[in-house]
Parts: sequence; C-alpha cells; structure tokens
Amino acid sequence: MPRLRDYGLTIGRYPTGPLNAITDVPGVWVGHTTLIKDEPRVIRTGVTAILPRQGEIWRDHAFAGFHTLNGCGEMTGVHWVAESGMLSTPIALTNTGQVGTVHEALCAYGQESGWTTTFSLPVVAETYDGWLNDLDAFAITRAHVYEAIAAAGPGPLAEGNVGGGTGMVCYDFKGGIGTASRQVDTRSGTFVVGALVQANHGDRVDFRLDGTPLSGADYALLSRLAPLPWPEPKRGGSIIVILATDAPLLPFQCRRLAQRATVGFARTGGMGHHGSGDLFLAFATGNHLPAQAKQLCSLSMLPNPQMDHLFVAAAEAVEEAILNALTAAETMTGFQGRTVYRLPGEWMRSKAKMPTF
Amino acid sequence: MPRLRDYGLTIGRYPTGPLNAITDVPGVWVGHTTLIKDEPRVIRTGVTAILPRQGEIWRDHAFAGFHTLNGCGEMTGVHWVAESGMLSTPIALTNTGQVGTVHEALCAYGQESGWTTTFSLPVVAETYDGWLNDLDAFAITRAHVYEAIAAAGPGPLAEGNVGGGTGMVCYDFKGGIGTASRQVDTRSGTFVVGALVQANHGDRVDFRLDGTPLSGADYALLSRLAPLPWPEPKRGGSIIVILATDAPLLPFQCRRLAQRATVGFARTGGMGHHGSGDLFLAFATGNHLPAQAKQLCSLSMLPNPQMDHLFVAAAEAVEEAILNALTAAETMTGFQGRTVYRLPGEWMRSKAKMPTF
Amino acid sequence: MPRLRDYGLTIGRYPTGPLNAITDVPGVWVGHTTLIKDEPRVIRTGVTAILPRQGEIWRDHAFAGFHTLNGCGEMTGVHWVAESGMLSTPIALTNTGQVGTVHEALCAYGQESGWTTTFSLPVVAETYDGWLNDLDAFAITRAHVYEAIAAAGPGPLAEGNVGGGTGMVCYDFKGGIGTASRQVDTRSGTFVVGALVQANHGDRVDFRLDGTPLSGADYALLSRLAPLPWPEPKRGGSIIVILATDAPLLPFQCRRLAQRATVGFARTGGMGHHGSGDLFLAFATGNHLPAQAKQLCSLSMLPNPQMDHLFVAAAEAVEEAILNALTAAETMTGFQGRTVYRLPGEWMRSKAKMPTF
Amino acid sequence: MPRLRDYGLTIGRYPTGPLNAITDVPGVWVGHTTLIKDEPRVIRTGVTAILPRQGEIWRDHAFAGFHTLNGCGEMTGVHWVAESGMLSTPIALTNTGQVGTVHEALCAYGQESGWTTTFSLPVVAETYDGWLNDLDAFAITRAHVYEAIAAAGPGPLAEGNVGGGTGMVCYDFKGGIGTASRQVDTRSGTFVVGALVQANHGDRVDFRLDGTPLSGADYALLSRLAPLPWPEPKRGGSIIVILATDAPLLPFQCRRLAQRATVGFARTGGMGHHGSGDLFLAFATGNHLPAQAKQLCSLSMLPNPQMDHLFVAAAEAVEEAILNALTAAETMTGFQGRTVYRLPGEWMRSKAKMPTF
Repeated sequence: MPRLRDYGLTIGRYPTGPLNAITDVPGVWVGHTTLIKDEPRVIRTGVTAILPRQGEIWRDHAFAGFHTLNGCGEMTGVHWVAESGMLSTPIALTNTGQVGTVHEALCAYGQESGWTTTFSLPVVAETYDGWLNDLDAFAITRAHVYEAIAAAGPGPLAEGNVGGGTGMVCYDFKGGIGTASRQVDTRSGTFVVGALVQANHGDRVDFRLDGTPLSGADYALLSRLAPLPWPEPKRGGSIIVILATDAPLLPFQCRRLAQRATVGFARTGGMGHHGSGDLFLAFATGNHLPAQAKQLCSLSMLPNPQMDHLFVAAAEAVEEAILNALTAAETMTGFQGRTVYRLPGEWMRSKAKMPTF
Repeated sequence: MPRLRDYGLTIGRYPTGPLNAITDVPGVWVGHTTLIKDEPRVIRTGVTAILPRQGEIWRDHAFAGFHTLNGCGEMTGVHWVAESGMLSTPIALTNTGQVGTVHEALCAYGQESGWTTTFSLPVVAETYDGWLNDLDAFAITRAHVYEAIAAAGPGPLAEGNVGGGTGMVCYDFKGGIGTASRQVDTRSGTFVVGALVQANHGDRVDFRLDGTPLSGADYALLSRLAPLPWPEPKRGGSIIVILATDAPLLPFQCRRLAQRATVGFARTGGMGHHGSGDLFLAFATGNHLPAQAKQLCSLSMLPNPQMDHLFVAAAEAVEEAILNALTAAETMTGFQGRTVYRLPGEWMRSKAKMPTF
Repeated sequence: MPRLRDYGLTIGRYPTGPLNAITDVPGVWVGHTTLIKDEPRVIRTGVTAILPRQGEIWRDHAFAGFHTLNGCGEMTGVHWVAESGMLSTPIALTNTGQVGTVHEALCAYGQESGWTTTFSLPVVAETYDGWLNDLDAFAITRAHVYEAIAAAGPGPLAEGNVGGGTGMVCYDFKGGIGTASRQVDTRSGTFVVGALVQANHGDRVDFRLDGTPLSGADYALLSRLAPLPWPEPKRGGSIIVILATDAPLLPFQCRRLAQRATVGFARTGGMGHHGSGDLFLAFATGNHLPAQAKQLCSLSMLPNPQMDHLFVAAAEAVEEAILNALTAAETMTGFQGRTVYRLPGEWMRSKAKMPTF
Repeated sequence: MPRLRDYGLTIGRYPTGPLNAITDVPGVWVGHTTLIKDEPRVIRTGVTAILPRQGEIWRDHAFAGFHTLNGCGEMTGVHWVAESGMLSTPIALTNTGQVGTVHEALCAYGQESGWTTTFSLPVVAETYDGWLNDLDAFAITRAHVYEAIAAAGPGPLAEGNVGGGTGMVCYDFKGGIGTASRQVDTRSGTFVVGALVQANHGDRVDFRLDGTPLSGADYALLSRLAPLPWPEPKRGGSIIVILATDAPLLPFQCRRLAQRATVGFARTGGMGHHGSGDLFLAFATGNHLPAQAKQLCSLSMLPNPQMDHLFVAAAEAVEEAILNALTAAETMTGFQGRTVYRLPGEWMRSKAKMPTF
C-alpha cells in the first residue's frame, strides 16, 4: 500500500524513525485481525492489538496518560490509567458494538496466561464502522482477538483497511489504520515518538493536506474522483490515537503528549465534532515498572522543557499517521452495497512538493 | 432481609422517601439477576440493571455527572456522559471480568429494541467478586442481562446478596447491593435523592457505624462473631455508587452531587484505597431531553445555593445504602469453600439508639 | 490599524458578525488601558477589561466553561467558574507580574460598587511582557484597572499594541490583542461566536497562514523584513483566549467550545509549548442567571448536535483573532532598547487570495 | 494554646510525628503574620507562609498535586502545578479580598531575590474572614507578606487565631490555622505526612468529634456555652488544606493524596457546601527537581500499593489538624462588635476517652 511519502509529500520538520511507524518504539508490537466476508452477512471489521514491551506489559507496566478531545466514544481502562499512572494491559482497537467482546477476550487472555492476580481493566477503544459493516452480526469473537495478539510483532505495519480500521471512513474517503513516527534529539538523548490512529472522522469540506484547506477546485476534483459515500456529508465519526515513546516520561508528561495529538489532528481538518469519539492515549516505555514492586522504584524523567521536542514530534506523527491511513486505504464496497472511495492517488501526486522547511 | 432501621438505627437528619430506596425517584426502576449455583462450577455473581424513566432513557435522556474517588475499576460510557452531559442508556452493575458480556448485551438490546441509531455507549460498572465466585467460569450470559432488564420495576428493592452484589465483601463482612433515599425540601420544591451501591470495599479496622469508629471491644466482639474471611485483612475492594434525583439539576450539578458520595462513604470508614474502584455516577430526571431534539430545549435548574440540601441528602443516602447492604447481606460460602460472614445482627441491635439529632 | 481581511485574506467558511469582533455578541463590552512611556522606566503594558452584559455580569451571571491547553500561566477565578458553572465577574487581561494588582482592583471595584455580598473571585489572566516592558516597575495601579472598566463599551475594538496586549510577542513578531467573530445559523436560531485573544505565543518556524506552513522562501523573506527579536528563537510565550456567544449554552457546552480554541490556535502554528500558558475561557449569554435566584431558573439549551456549528465558528474566530493581532500590531521598541518587528504587510499582501471554499 | 491531645483525645491509629505538625516534614517551614488591631479600622486577618525546602523551593522544586472538593474559593498557581507536576514557589494563605496583594508580593519577592527568570505563578489561597475583619480596609501590605516569609522556620507552630487563620470561623465556633502529622512505616521506608489547614467552614449541626455526630444533648450544651455567632446558621465558609510529605511521590500520587483530605474533612462534619472553597494541595519533597535541570532527572517512586498507608495518614492528619484549629482558637470579638466563641474546653474534656483502637 502506498504511504504519504510515496507521493512526494512530507509533514513537518522532524526526521522519521526507520519504519515511520509506532513500531519504531522498541518493544511496541502491533497485530491485526481483519474480517472481510460477504456470507452469510457482510462483514468489514476487525481488531488491532498493540502490545507494549513485546507483550510483557502485564508484568512490566508503562507510564501513560489520556486526553479526550470529544467523548462520543469508548476507551475502557482509563480510570485505572489515570489513577495508577500506568498502562498495565495490551491495547485493542475495534468497532463500537464489540467493545464488550474484545474487553472480555482480554480479561480471559490474562487469566489463561496466568495473570489472574492482575486486575482486569484492559484498554479497549472503538470507532463506528456500521456504514460498511453489518454491526448487528457481532462478527468478532474471542478467537479473533487472540489472533490479533498472536499476530502482533515488530517491524513494518499494514495500514488502511486492516484490523480495527477495516470498515472506517475518514473525511468522507475510505479511512482506517495509519501510523508514523518521529525521532527527537534532546539534551537528554535521542527518543522516538510513534503514533497509530484508527481514523474514522471528519467532513471532507474540512480536509486539509499539510495544513492547507482544500481550494474550490480541489474539492470539485475530489468530488468527481471520489464521490461522497452518503447523500449529504454526515458529521461525526471518531478517531482513536495511540502515542508511544521510549522517552522516560512520567504520567503527567504522557497526558500532555496525548493532548498534543489534537494539534496534528487539527492540521488535517479535525474538529472534535459532537458525535465523534476523539480519544487519545500516550504511553512511555522509558521507565520500567514491575507489577510486583515492593521497594522504591528508580526512575528517570525527561526535564519538562525538553517536552517541547516531543510535542512537535507527536503532532507531526499524528498528522502523518492520519494521512497514511487515508493514503493506504483502498476503495471498499460493503454493507448494503455501499461504496466508500479512497483518497485519489492522482490528486495526491498533483500535490507533491518540496518539504516546507 | 433486615435493613438498618430495623435495628433502631438511623443515619443523618433528613427524612427518607417512602421506600427509603433509589426507586423513590419516580420512574427509576431496578432489576436483579442473581446467579447462585455450585455445579458445574461455583457461581456467586449477577447483574443489577437500573432503568431511569421506566426504561425510556434511550428516548428521553437525563442529565448526569461522574466522580472518581479511586479509579481501580471500570465504569464504561462515562466519556460520553461527561461530553454530552447526559445519561442515555440503562446502567448495569456486574463483576469485574464480565463487563464485556454485559456491555455487549446492552448494545445488542439497544439494537433489538430498534435503537440502532443511538450510539452504543452504555454505562456498565463492576466490582470484583473473585473471592466467592469462580470468575474464570464467565457465568453471565447475554440472557442474564436481558433478565435483569425484564425484572426491573418500581417499588421495594432486594438488597444484600443479589444482582451484581451477589458475591461482594464489604469491610470484611458480606457485602452487596444496598439502597436508601432522602426527601429534601427546598424553596424550589420537594425532591428525592436516592442512592444504590454495590459495596465491596474496605478494611474492617476502618469500619464505622454512624461515623463512630469501632472501639477495641467492638472489634474483638465482631471478630469473634464474624471471623475475617481471609488470613489477613486484604486491602482493595471497590464500590459503585449510583445517585438519582428528580430535581432539575444540570450536568455540573450532577457531577457535584456524585462527588458528595465521598462524604457518606467516608463516614462508613471508606478511604478510596489504591486497589479500589470507587466510581460514582449521579443522574437527574427533572429535565426531559428528547434524543431527537431539533429546537432549543426548555429546562429548569435548581439554584446553586439550594444544592446544599441535596449534598446532605446524597451523603446520608450513600452512608445508609452501604449500611443497608451490610445489614441485608447474609453469610455466604462460595468458591473454594470460602465463607464470608454477615455483619452480626446482635451487634447491630446493641448499637440501637435514638436519632442523633 | 489594518486587519487580516484588509489584505484580501479570509479564514474559514462562516460569515463574520458585523464588526468581526467579540463585541458582536450583544452586551459584551471591551475596554483597554494602554501604558506606553519611557520615563522614569520603560513601560509597555496595560489592562484589557471584558464586561459581559454591559457590566451587569455581577448581577446576571452567564454560564461559562474553561479549558487548559498548557498551564504555564495564570487565570484566576476558574475554580469557581467550574464549580458554579457560571462567570460572575468581569474578565481582565494583563501582564504576568501584576495579576495581583488587577485581582485586588476587581475585588475593590466590586466592593465600591455595592457588590460586597458577592464572592470576590474575579477572572484575571495574564501573559508575559517582560521582553519589552520593565516588569519590575509594577507600573499598573488600581486606577488603571478602573480606567479599563470605564473605557469599556460596545462597537469596534482596538487591536494590536493595546491593553493587556501592549508588550506582547507572537511567533517572534509583535503580538497583542486580536478579535474576530462568526455568525452561525442553526435550526434553533442564529447566533454569534466572538473571540478575543491576547497573543504572546509561538515560534516563527511554526507560523502558518490559513493553515499553510511557511515555505523556506517565506521564512527567508520574513527574516529579512522582520528580524527575530532575540538571538535565537525563544520557546514559550502564552495565549489567553476568551470566547463569547449569545447562544444558550450550558456550562459543559461552554467548556466544549473553549476546547475548540485549540483547533484555531493549531491552525496558526500553535502547539502549547511547555513554557506557555494557553488558557481558554468561553461564556454564553443566552441564559439569564440572576445572582439572587430563589426559585427554579428557566433555561434554554442548544441541542448538542448543533454545537458542531459553534465549534467551527469558534475555531475560525480564534484563528482569525490571532492573525488580526499580528496584523494590527506595530513594530515596538521597549525595555533595554529591544525591538520587536511587526508581521510585514507587504508579505501579507503577497498572500492575498480567493476564499478557499 | 491547647491541642486536641491535651484533652485526652486522639484521632486514628497511626503515630504522630514528633511535633504533630506539618513541620515534621523535614525542610518545611511555616511563618505567620497576624494582624489584630482596632484602630483606625477593625482588623482581624493575616498571612501564613509555607516554605518547602527551607525556602529553596524556587531552586529545587517538589512534585505536587491538587484536588478540589468545592471550588468557591481561590488558589492561584495550580494551572502550573497541574501542568508541570511541580510546586515551584512558596505557598501563602490569606483572606479572600487580598489574594492580589499577596500574589504580587510573592512575585516581587521572587524578583528581589534574583529569581526573575522563574515564572511568577505563586500559590496563594484564601478563605473569607469578613465576619470578624473589615475586609474593605485591605489591611495586608506587601511588607506583611515578607514578614511572614521572614518569620518562617522549623519547629512547633502557632495554631488558632494566627496568620491567614486569624479571623476565621469553623462549625460556627472560632476557627483558624491547625496542623497535625502522622508517621508511616512502609516496606520502602518510614515517611511523614503533615497537614496544615486554614479552617473556616461548616455548620455546627454537622460537627463531629472523632467521627461521631453531636447528640441533641451535646448540641444544646454547646449552644449554651458557645452561642452561634450569627442569627441563623450561615452555610458556606471554606477550608484550605496543605499536605506535605517526605515520601518520594510522583505528581499523580500527590494528587491522590490531596484527594484523601476529603476523608478527614468529612469525618469532622465537612460537606463541601456550595459556597465553600475547599481546595487541597499536596506536595512531596522526596525527590529533588533542580529548576535548571538539563539532563534526565533521577527519581524514586513509592510503589502505588504503599500509598494506602499515606492515604490513611493524610485523612487522620487533616481530621486532627481541623480539630487542633478549633481547639487552639480563642474567642474573638471583631468587626462591628461581633463575637465568635471558641469550642468549649470543658465540653472537650468531657469527651476524653481511650484511643478507639
């Protein structure tokens, strides 16, 4: 699948990590289960699992923080993230109606893996794929969640119509999963900030490429190449953003990082509509937090002023991850014969330019 | 089952509603599914459903607000409550591991009931019953959730070892579901504040009756009559508090009311331990909020200074609801032959006194 | 002073109010005290007063809500705004070191005006003008605050180097006060959203015009026309945003509106740097809230889905208000002979274009 | 002045520090300026300064966190505490109308002490003393604030009618400043938790001694010995709580600790009335945070489960600090000849008892 940079476009001024993906953060693994079938019901959905610390997050927690831009969505487990300051479970992304299935699957997986003494408060987030997917079919099973976990690994990462993003729609184009990363040099060392998004938000009229609004000509061309998927622009939709870094951030610094997803999101045309669930989580693996710690934990902290570099990196990575989701997603026909068109490659090519700075 | 007042004890200075229950708030219905069986596995669990507006909450929302005393627990749907200011689904209480089952059941119930256009962000909360219940059995099914909804109605309400509270432990005594209510006269009219708790929290050493700590003699007597259920006091546990009122509160006023559950909770000896999920939700039915409102909604608001009456009422109702849970719960033997003893009635009788004021 | 639209530039797709200013919201008055003198000390500072309800906000409160993008700044009075849901005092903007003087002046003004029974919790916010202003001089007196209040009125509004914005720096250009407004048609009626900013934030490298980042050529040209005011780009700075609307919003809706200031801010290049105090307050005059209400208050509420129009309006108004601050501010030399250059008009003219949509 | 324990009463089950005062936390200094005069105007007010790290908090910050029980009050500087995770200035407590004077005095003190490069965002909190003090006189000057700072030191601490607490009223008795501390043994070491309160809250009808509500006989006796200071019980009032510990807590753990002040407060009869400013701040000196840190900071963290001990300690210390304020305060006559009576010592003596546990 093509990525934004394949069209000669870049975002921002910081260098990417080697893969330009959340998996550039050491130990962060991602796996997808993608469900696409037409019989007996039309299914276009899936699960994306994010496993920090090569899956050992149950044993060795990571500081984390959370931000809500707009709360018309679900992300479970965040009461505990906020209270304990830590992420202590994998993260799974899926569709709106099956948060329950995926939540219980993670609880069961924890129990079967011998983690029964750990509280069962997993992080499961969702966006709504009912336009292309027959939500009433409740197609996702516990086995599908286990599959996504089993599939998780390091390295390059499928984007677009995969995993939890399979049936998503973004700026009235086909949306889905996207990722990107940035490398950041600070006085305290070099760190990576990675973003993964499940992008299902936005009105096309608001869409921006590298921050620039569509001209009237752009909009007309895009409308011809990629007709709107519904009679009139439907507000709403949602985006889940997961940010990861290997910098040694404390929980409040993670929360601050999560909040900067708003900046990258806004640069693509995001608003945080009333009917949108725009929920952002950031975790930092730079400190180790054994689940059974009995003595004082020794930690490091990035000095606060150096957060500015990570803020820029987070905004850039989120912006590019959304554009990667749009670039990678392919036109899809699904539930009730509806078609959602991809962001046209020819239009993207016409926008190629030198880096802005 | 006996209630606190059957022992000649009262809490606070405000009068109760007719039933001294959350169902004193007009239109608030409660139903339990209680699962107690020994074969093939030892099950002590259940579901409690709270249906505002006689179940029509999907159509006619209610303002609501949320407070976290300690976040080691799950209550789904609250991003949406906070963002929209409204409760738009029933509430269900259950055990920790089956939040997922119950969540998906409410989504499915909504779909089957023709509410497919409504976002599927139900409020499901939990406390941990793994001491008495074989959590790995995942005993609760979608049908059990439907049963609790079908059983919901007005009127007196079973307490103790019922519904979501079936297997709970509170101050090292048998805990469970409890309820209470208060009537409040304000310049703006008379209102009811009702509380329902799923009480699974606390160390016995911290337990207080009407705010008074246990004396050494009390503690020794109680330890003889009701031995601790575990080798040494285990911290943690959790409490879910649902507050309802027919006063016309706005969302921020609901949030304030929810926060006052802390006061009643503290008077019983509650602390908000690290491993406790102490999550409080308040909703107010005094304004009608049609799901499909297209024009300005006409509302009423209780003047802020009159909130003081409701604050006192909420604190008293929560305190008494916890004590009612303890009073109604009976000694239970469950998973792995463990026994949790009830708060001894003879001790309670010895504490009978005149109202304090 | 020129405004953005004088250069043939527009922002967004919604129409402005008649004045394209926060004073388009009926009853919102603004007044400035501007202190510019070189003897005995170099003073470049001031106070901007915002008086909702023609100054009668002490008697007739307005629902309000608050959002923090980054908290390296002060805005007093917001504990009370959050708790009561209401703004009950005027708002004053000034420099960092004299929040105290201005705060006490508002308390004294309240007392002298016979509002002694009202709690003295005024909203005073600040940004740092110590680059151009001799902060140690503590030049602002109580009388200056009274002057700003006395000067407040409806109608067009001075921008740039005035009031609290006198000595501010924005994107390494001269910053200050800016304002803009939008008109919004909803099913529930037509409303105005107005923004006023005190803009003192940002690195030039991040600056964007209508969302588009600077090209290398842009940056070189700007650096020649308007050299950086300091040896190397200094991070930090701050922005205060005040949003006003005549729509009947409840407090949680005001908070949501305030949060959307982030979107407009991000489109200009804003990030929320570590050392920045990016504090946003929104109030809504569409409901009347008598300070002495004894009975239920009758209110209206905009249906939540219609908030989307106001979100777009708020983002656009904030973006344009920041650009208006930059456009109106003139080159200033101040403390220690330092000069901060204005955003060059000739560069602005070169960017004139048709509306993007 | 007598303290609670002089009457044979104790609170809770944890041992106190050597002084049973916030100054048991090493390096925490406290100083009062007390203004009591009758000419030319009737003044009953003051300032209390809390200087962590022997005043070096400007150079070596401390992690901190904040909680609001009810926000009808002011505590400045907390946007920055929340964002940076740190307390970086002294704390000052005073009356409602002179937050400004004290705020500006701390800014000026910082500048004069050569800390001009530090942002000027001091923590100043207040409660309302207008019943006994002629607030319109604005009696406090910058010099009085400097005096309180100069007077600050380690060791025993005056309580009752001193400093910011001079003119306060609590449960309709004379209130003021109170303090207490607890020692806590954890697996990670022994720590101190200290509390200082400026207590100006509560209705007598709600007052509780060691958690036990007043009986009718108690209330009648107290009303005879200490008549209510006003025609009928006036709701409102406020309490400021400052918690300090030498445990190495992170910011989120400080916030959690601050929230537990609610528990101790509730046990004395506190509610968080609508008109009350019940604002709680906790800081932890166990980690050193140089203001100019350029490299990764090395930190320690108390394991989360061990927070339970500190929670109990915080609740007990706050409860006893409130009771110490009541015990130490003496009957005062002030503005307009009004008298507020102390909590009668003979009643206290009648309540002496053995420790409850």
